[in-house]
Amino acid sequence: MAVFSSLTPVFVAVLCVIIGFLFKNSRRREPRSKQKRSDQTARPWVDEDLQDDTEISSKHNDATEEENLQHIPYTPARYSAAEMLERSEKFYSLMNLRRSVRFISPEPVPKEVIDNVIRTAGTAPSGAHTEPWTFVVVSDADLKHKIREIVEEEEEINYKQRMGHKWVHDLKKLRTNWVKDYLDVAPCLILVFKQTYGFLSGGKKKTHYYNEISVSISCGILLAALQNVGLVTVTTTPLNCGPQLRSLLQRPANEKLLMLLPVGYPSSDAKVPDLKRKDLNDIMVTV
Amino acid sequence: MAVFSSLTPVFVAVLCVIIGFLFKNSRRREPRSKQKRSDQTARPWVDEDLQDDTEISSKHNDATEEENLQHIPYTPARYSAAEMLERSEKFYSLMNLRRSVRFISPEPVPKEVIDNVIRTAGTAPSGAHTEPWTFVVVSDADLKHKIREIVEEEEEINYKQRMGHKWVHDLKKLRTNWVKDYLDVAPCLILVFKQTYGFLSGGKKKTHYYNEISVSISCGILLAALQNVGLVTVTTTPLNCGPQLRSLLQRPANEKLLMLLPVGYPSSDAKVPDLKRKDLNDIMVTV
Repeated sequence: MAVFSSLTPVFVAVLCVIIGFLFKNSRRREPRSKQKRSDQTARPWVDEDLQDDTEISSKHNDATEEENLQHIPYTPARYSAAEMLERSEKFYSLMNLRRSVRFISPEPVPKEVIDNVIRTAGTAPSGAHTEPWTFVVVSDADLKHKIREIVEEEEEINYKQRMGHKWVHDLKKLRTNWVKDYLDVAPCLILVFKQTYGFLSGGKKKTHYYNEISVSISCGILLAALQNVGLVTVTTTPLNCGPQLRSLLQRPANEKLLMLLPVGYPSSDAKVPDLKRKDLNDIMVTV
Repeated sequence: MAVFSSLTPVFVAVLCVIIGFLFKNSRRREPRSKQKRSDQTARPWVDEDLQDDTEISSKHNDATEEENLQHIPYTPARYSAAEMLERSEKFYSLMNLRRSVRFISPEPVPKEVIDNVIRTAGTAPSGAHTEPWTFVVVSDADLKHKIREIVEEEEEINYKQRMGHKWVHDLKKLRTNWVKDYLDVAPCLILVFKQTYGFLSGGKKKTHYYNEISVSISCGILLAALQNVGLVTVTTTPLNCGPQLRSLLQRPANEKLLMLLPVGYPSSDAKVPDLKRKDLNDIMVTV
């Protein structure tokens, strides 16, 4: 017993250090989501799918601007049922001709048209009207080539290593691969950045709710606007190129690349896969 | 020293157990993303932002369908520069009149128009042409009311507990709260579901690449189509209601609610906040 009692202090000290260490780690290990959920009511069916990566938390020096907006009457154009039907058919026919086109002519496109197309994209709704988008329009040949180099280098790795056989196989029918001539050839590239947060006039961070969904909606309107003027594009989301392209284009840290759209007229030899779209009954359910 | 040597076995045994425990935990703590990354080339600047929650992995019984698609010439309409400019201005003017409207008239809307609007949404591009969207159109009064009850119950909790003062404050200027009359009043509700995966003809799971981005793009085109026929909506993403609404509407497990759009004519007393949109120079960068 004398043996024991003489060593106990050392032993206890070592145990204390180890237990302290364990405790510290177990706290650090607590999942973030749990912390997030703490101010919510925990329910088994809670759906977190409607949350994108919007950064909302007090870890930011977040603040809001006082705005006391006037509310004004809204009286838009009203069409007769016949006009509505006709307009809906016409717009559907126009949009139904849109295809993702990888064969783009080098002919320049009118700058004013691109301006209007981007103005149109900017009419999209956004979470709490934050308008979290930046459209970078690149027409400089050197810069386009640098973009191509970055994208092709990454895409080759994507196709050969990251994406896996199945994904590559799924894309085979679309005849896509990592060689992207159109990045050199297209007269302009539109790089769409989502702003994961913004800034208030005082420089403090401003939350951009649902920024990815908002910017994607805006891209939908951009595609409609391009189709409406007879220009083509292909919606690409080049994996892993975001940081390098953001750095090349000197975009700030709050902006992340969402999509890269090469834009122009279709080339005379443009081909597209003979895809069919789903029937209305396969995409719509009426209750 | 004798004291030491006699206790060493016990001490070492205790230390071994503790170190073993620590080691086991540190391995368990290893972030999942690292595991994901293992088949990629690890690089410090790797951008994971371009990945949404697309389920791609061998944990699914995934397989692909053999398709050998023909490629056909694509020769769309070509407009003169003057026509392009005019069309781009006209479309911008039309879209610029779009507003998120919470005052919706109960008047019914022509079913064929809604059909065409959804057909139009279905022309959106999607990752590997998977068309991962389901549009549920609800016009039944009872069902609309049940949807309202689910949404209001959750939204009240959202506003009072989950969203936090700042978010609620940011929405104040838009005069939104958890009371959603329009869910009863609007002649139709469009619930937009993203299919997080699909099924092949043999019943095996099919990967839906970038499904959330694809469905959001489709929603952008849907908004354009609604605006084009003079109907209004407000893009809502009701937090935490997804599973209950999916269950109510008997949608399958692979579908998750992305957006809920009440659709109709604006009511005669419709008001909107007097918001301004950013100037072109604030959303576009030309290089």
